[in-house]
Amino acid sequence: MTGSPDGDPDIDLRHHGDAEVGGGLADFAVNVRTGTPPPWLAERLRASVADLAAYPDPRPARRAVARRHGRSADEVLLTSGAAEAFVLLARVLAPRGAVVVHPQFTEPEAALRAAGHPVRRVVLGKDFTLDPTAVPADADLVVIGNPTNPTSVLHPADTIAALARPGRTVVVDEAFMDCVPGEPETLTGRLPTGVVVIRSLTKTWGLAGLRAGYVMAGPHLIGRLAEAQPLWAVSTPALVAIEACSAPNAVAEAAAWAVELAAERDRLAAELTARGIYVVPEARASFLCLRVPDALGLRALLRQRGYAVRRGDTFPGLGTDWLRVAVRDRASNDALLDVLGELGI
Amino acid sequence: MTGSPDGDPDIDLRHHGDAEVGGGLADFAVNVRTGTPPPWLAERLRASVADLAAYPDPRPARRAVARRHGRSADEVLLTSGAAEAFVLLARVLAPRGAVVVHPQFTEPEAALRAAGHPVRRVVLGKDFTLDPTAVPADADLVVIGNPTNPTSVLHPADTIAALARPGRTVVVDEAFMDCVPGEPETLTGRLPTGVVVIRSLTKTWGLAGLRAGYVMAGPHLIGRLAEAQPLWAVSTPALVAIEACSAPNAVAEAAAWAVELAAERDRLAAELTARGIYVVPEARASFLCLRVPDALGLRALLRQRGYAVRRGDTFPGLGTDWLRVAVRDRASNDALLDVLGELGI
Repeated sequence: MTGSPDGDPDIDLRHHGDAEVGGGLADFAVNVRTGTPPPWLAERLRASVADLAAYPDPRPARRAVARRHGRSADEVLLTSGAAEAFVLLARVLAPRGAVVVHPQFTEPEAALRAAGHPVRRVVLGKDFTLDPTAVPADADLVVIGNPTNPTSVLHPADTIAALARPGRTVVVDEAFMDCVPGEPETLTGRLPTGVVVIRSLTKTWGLAGLRAGYVMAGPHLIGRLAEAQPLWAVSTPALVAIEACSAPNAVAEAAAWAVELAAERDRLAAELTARGIYVVPEARASFLCLRVPDALGLRALLRQRGYAVRRGDTFPGLGTDWLRVAVRDRASNDALLDVLGELGI
Repeated sequence: MTGSPDGDPDIDLRHHGDAEVGGGLADFAVNVRTGTPPPWLAERLRASVADLAAYPDPRPARRAVARRHGRSADEVLLTSGAAEAFVLLARVLAPRGAVVVHPQFTEPEAALRAAGHPVRRVVLGKDFTLDPTAVPADADLVVIGNPTNPTSVLHPADTIAALARPGRTVVVDEAFMDCVPGEPETLTGRLPTGVVVIRSLTKTWGLAGLRAGYVMAGPHLIGRLAEAQPLWAVSTPALVAIEACSAPNAVAEAAAWAVELAAERDRLAAELTARGIYVVPEARASFLCLRVPDALGLRALLRQRGYAVRRGDTFPGLGTDWLRVAVRDRASNDALLDVLGELGI
C-alpha cells in the first residue's frame, strides 16, 4: 500500500464505462445487470408517467428505504443517483484532508476536486485488500468503495468502521453491495457514528438512466445534505423505483440474482485464471478486474470483434495492464471466452 | 420600490404551491397546465423506460434546445429542473452582493442562502413593474423572474438586459415565458453578455415530477456550471422530454396553448376585477395575483369548499392580503367563480 500526495493529472477521472459502449458492441464495460429493469418494474415506471404533472413527494420512498435497512427515515436522503451524493458530500463536508482509497470509482474524487478540495490518494497494495494503517491519521474524510469498483474486492465492515474517529467522516460507496448475497459487510444496518453509506439502484435494477440512489447517515448530516440539495431533486419515476425496489419481494429478487451472479462470476474468474490471466482474487461484485500484458491492445482487438471491455488505466492505482470485465449471463460470458480463445488467450 | 437589507426570517421560502394541494381539492395552487403531459409526450416517456439500463446521454437534447432558441449547444446546460439551476448558480457565482427582485419564486433566494451567500431583497412597488434604478449599483448578481411568479408581470427584455454590466450577472427565471404568445420578451435568443436565462418544461408540459429544465448563458459560465453539476444529472426520460418539447411541432403546440391561455386568463381577470378584487394588471403568465382583505381567511373558506389556492404571504413583498390563483380551463374557472359568488364575492 502506497500513499500518493496528489493525483496524476493525466488520468481522466471523468472516463466511465458508458463511454466505451455503443455501436452494437457486446457490453462488458458497463456494470449494469442484463435484462433490466425487470418487466414488473418497467410496468410501474410506465404507469408513473400518469403522475408527472405533480411535483415529486419523496416521503413514501424515503420511509421504504429506511424500513428496508432497519433504520429511521431521518437517516436517509434520496439522491439523483449516487453521483449526486458525492457532490453533496463534497459541498457539505468541505474536507481539508480528504483521502480517497484507490483504485475505486473516480467520481468521488472528481466531485471533491470540482468543489475545490485537495485530495490525497491511498493506493491499495497486493490484491487490493484494505490496510487501515495506511490511511493518514489526519484524514478528516476517507472515501472507500465496498465492494470496490473496479477491483471487486469486499472489505470487512469492521475494518471500515474502525476507520471512523472524532473529526473524521468515512464515506462508504456501497453501490454494488447488493451483488453480495446476504450483504454481510454492509454498514447500512449499523451506521456507526461518523460513517456515511451511499447506495444505488442503478446496477441491480438497470436504472442507470433514471438516477436513483440514496445516502444513509446520522440525522444531523442528513439534514445538512438535504439543505444543500436542490428542491425536488429526485424525479417521480425514480421515487417509484426506489420505493418498489425497497419492498421485501424486490429485495428477495435481488438477493436471488446475487446468488446466481456469484456462481457465474466465479466460473468466469476460474476460466480466465485457467488461461493465465491474473484475476484479482475474492471478487464479490458484478465484474472482474484483470491484469494482462498490453491490456489496451487486447481491448482494441476485442472491440474489433464486437466486444467492449472497460479500460483499467483511468483508475488511479491501476495501469495499462488492467481491464475491468462485467459478468454477464453464461452464454454471453462463453461468447467472450470464445473470442479470447481466438485471440490466443 | 423599496430596498430591504435582509430577508424577513419569518417567511418560509421553502413553501410552494405543491404543499397546498391534495386531499381531492381542485388545484388552483400549482401552476402546471391541465391535461398534461399530452398523450403523444406521455407515450414517448413510457417508451423511454426500455432504455433505462443505459446511462443518460444529454447531447441530443442539448442540441435540440440550442436549435429551438437559435443558439449553440455550448450555451446550454440541461438541469434537473430549474431548481437545480438555482443551486448551481449559487455555488458557482458565489456572489458577495446578490440582489433578488421580489416578489418572485423563492427558490433562488433559498438556494443562495443555503450556499451561505448574503441576499438583499429589492421589493417592486406599484403593480410590480420593474424600475431598474432600484437595483443597487454594487449588486454583482441580480435575480429576476420574467414573467414573474407570483405577480404574472412581464418585464421588457430591454429593461432586464440593461441591468447587465461588467462584474454583474443577471439571472432571468423564464420558467413561465412559454405562457407568453410569441415570447417577445425572452432573452434566450439574444443572451447578452452577463445574462443567464433559466427555463423549465414543468408548467407547460406537465412535467413537474420529471425534473427537466435548462440554463442558457455564455459558454464559459456554462462550462463552470457543468463542472459543478453531478454526473448524469438529468435522467433519460427528462432528456427525452426536453428533446421532444424543443422540436418545432411541440413549440407550435405550446404557442397555440399560450394563445388560448391568454384569452381565458384575461376573462378570469376581468370577472374577478368586476367583483371588486384587485388583480395585478397586465398579467401574462398562467396565474393571477390577487389582493383581497383577509386572503388567508378566504383561502381557508375555499379549502372547505374543495378549492386550493396559493397563499401569497410566503412571497417576500406580498402579505396576508394576497393570493395566487392558477388559470385553468373555462369550466374549472367558472366553478371557482361560482364558489366565490357563494362566499359573497
